[in-house]
Amino acid sequence: MKDTDDIAALMADMGSRARAAAKQLAIAPAEAKTRALNAAADRLEAAEAEIVAANAQDMEFGREKGLSPAMLDRLMLDGDRVKAIAGSLRAIAAQEDPVGATLDSWDMPSGLAIERVRTPIGVIGVIYESRPNVTADAGALCLKSGNAVILRGGSESLHSSRAIHACLVQGLADAGLPEDAVQLVPTRDRAAVSEMLAMTDYIDVIVPRGGKGLVGLVQREARVPVFAHLEGIVHIYIDKDADPEAALKVVLNAKTRRTGICGAAECLLIHRDVLKTVGQGVVRALLDAGVEVRGDADVAAIDGVVAAGEDDWGREFLDKIIGARVVDDIDGAMAHISRYGSDHTDCIITDDAETAARFLNEVDSAIVMHNASTQFADGGEFGMGAEIGIATGRLHARGPVGAEQLTSFKYKVRGTGNTRG
Amino acid sequence: MKDTDDIAALMADMGSRARAAAKQLAIAPAEAKTRALNAAADRLEAAEAEIVAANAQDMEFGREKGLSPAMLDRLMLDGDRVKAIAGSLRAIAAQEDPVGATLDSWDMPSGLAIERVRTPIGVIGVIYESRPNVTADAGALCLKSGNAVILRGGSESLHSSRAIHACLVQGLADAGLPEDAVQLVPTRDRAAVSEMLAMTDYIDVIVPRGGKGLVGLVQREARVPVFAHLEGIVHIYIDKDADPEAALKVVLNAKTRRTGICGAAECLLIHRDVLKTVGQGVVRALLDAGVEVRGDADVAAIDGVVAAGEDDWGREFLDKIIGARVVDDIDGAMAHISRYGSDHTDCIITDDAETAARFLNEVDSAIVMHNASTQFADGGEFGMGAEIGIATGRLHARGPVGAEQLTSFKYKVRGTGNTRG
Repeated sequence: MKDTDDIAALMADMGSRARAAAKQLAIAPAEAKTRALNAAADRLEAAEAEIVAANAQDMEFGREKGLSPAMLDRLMLDGDRVKAIAGSLRAIAAQEDPVGATLDSWDMPSGLAIERVRTPIGVIGVIYESRPNVTADAGALCLKSGNAVILRGGSESLHSSRAIHACLVQGLADAGLPEDAVQLVPTRDRAAVSEMLAMTDYIDVIVPRGGKGLVGLVQREARVPVFAHLEGIVHIYIDKDADPEAALKVVLNAKTRRTGICGAAECLLIHRDVLKTVGQGVVRALLDAGVEVRGDADVAAIDGVVAAGEDDWGREFLDKIIGARVVDDIDGAMAHISRYGSDHTDCIITDDAETAARFLNEVDSAIVMHNASTQFADGGEFGMGAEIGIATGRLHARGPVGAEQLTSFKYKVRGTGNTRG
Repeated sequence: MKDTDDIAALMADMGSRARAAAKQLAIAPAEAKTRALNAAADRLEAAEAEIVAANAQDMEFGREKGLSPAMLDRLMLDGDRVKAIAGSLRAIAAQEDPVGATLDSWDMPSGLAIERVRTPIGVIGVIYESRPNVTADAGALCLKSGNAVILRGGSESLHSSRAIHACLVQGLADAGLPEDAVQLVPTRDRAAVSEMLAMTDYIDVIVPRGGKGLVGLVQREARVPVFAHLEGIVHIYIDKDADPEAALKVVLNAKTRRTGICGAAECLLIHRDVLKTVGQGVVRALLDAGVEVRGDADVAAIDGVVAAGEDDWGREFLDKIIGARVVDDIDGAMAHISRYGSDHTDCIITDDAETAARFLNEVDSAIVMHNASTQFADGGEFGMGAEIGIATGRLHARGPVGAEQLTSFKYKVRGTGNTRG
């Protein structure tokens, strides 16, 4: 066993092993990566009982720690969930290998043939909370894209993550790939996260998945580049030209289908002209569905709506609660989104093509939607297979991050002895 | 006039003005940006005498400061150079506008139509040394890509940069675009650079162009994401199957055409089997061309070669000097490049297709070349028009950075009232 007291040394050792594994993985054949992922899925299924038992330890720890029922539900693994994780690994295995793909190619008048090809990034650090399935998904997506990964899961899920990680490592071994390609930080010590954020020699990019505590830590301490994953402060704007039926079903679905995901709507903006018609109908339907509606003065005039406080704007409830306010027009809606949004996903409901086009052009969020539920903000629903998260930054990766978004590129230039004049 | 003593306040003011300008610029029509660039070119040509006079002040300051002849040459502007800068602006104006272009689009079984479109990044900070033309090129590329920019040029070129910047601002005004879209830091105080590196609220990415001092400062202090631009420690490997004539002309061109650019070769790696034949011929030709060859023990056996010190490996000479050493095979060459290279540009000379493929696949530099001079490592030679530099990092931008590489993207998702099951 490592001496986990010396976190800096532990992490540096993991980092240098990841770097070495990344070099091998970058040139590994697609077939070997596929084989490793399928073998890991086999191992997971065979180890179902052990994984569920490990998870029981985490659940007990979680209950003692006083985790909310919602968090305990995310943490929990049963036989079906383990099978689903294995299925996800097989799905990633079946995807096309992104590495080496030609992104573009052209010839220059100088006689050079230039080709832009996909390459792995190198070593990825993933810092996440207590969903054990992220261990498998993030590990698999990094492997698929030819990157080594250092996983640092939530402390509550340590036993579950270890059991899943062991299957991934066995899959790597079965396929003759370096076991250090997927490493799991073996300690609950928070200092490991600080180390990861500063390991510029060993980690090329950090993917943080978590709440405000982690986001704050990343903002203060990160020296390694970060694919920002902020909260999903998702807005839906009901325009004056919204179709009443579309508004009703889209908003209800966006808020209530699942309230705990980042694509769930958190704030409703209603054009003043339709407050008494479409707006009121939507608000009543939300109330009937058991949603707490926190409205501004205009919306709060509707029976059953409670008054919103200033801190209800720009807030990710992740619960059966929604903010609601009236705006004078699309500019008012976009100004609200610009001020309170998190550049994740925002939506307009309108039948006016010009208004829709303005919204889609001018709202600068990773995903901008027209007449569709924001619950579609998901890599699977985008056709990307699994996702490691939804990036809210503007650099490199934006929106759902799948295997392809975890790659870089380089230029191959071929000549026949060409010299520059 | 600003109180330039309070650098933090000055920079925050510039930052918030840049942010406001970026919002306008992001939705500005392509035609307005084109008009601004052409108007700036007109203004530059009309102001030729003033610009040359401003440059004379910088040249005097530079001579007093003891700048090298090479640096003074980079700093110097005459009528022809001003005309060339104007020409570069017109060339960027004539390029296709990258913003709003559809990068990909597809339909999902759910009925959603998904489109990936190019967007500006936001606000770009460019920190560079004393080439006044970078003021125009960087300003123009950022404008073309819909980004606001804060330019911080080398202190030696302040008067020249100011004169050029004034023309850019006039161009913006002529086209009805916000003048704050292109701002120049008005002070020589180095504290302005430190501020830029920490302005995460106002700057989305920093493009640093400079020597080791700047690179070190960026590595220590940057909180804003950086498009790394390290030195070009460019290697050429002469394989045992190299064509002698191609080796000779490519190496000579790569080293001697211009020694001061980042694509100039700095280190020659020679397969042991051809040291006495092709290798010796190339080394003698370099010596004949007046290049100082610093060789390992094997190469130093050739008459006229001096012994290399350990610090000659991984060194960017930017001069008529080259390191040269013998390697046992392609693995030895790749190991040397991996240890001493800067992930910029590296080249193999061989007629063996399999060896070439291995080198192009396995060397992880932004540009990997086969049988062509490394002096082609240039945005213009890649067909990108002007470049802001050659990125050596792996994230977002890699290799030559033109207008297209200064953009991000977002997803537009269109439905017809779709809800997720």
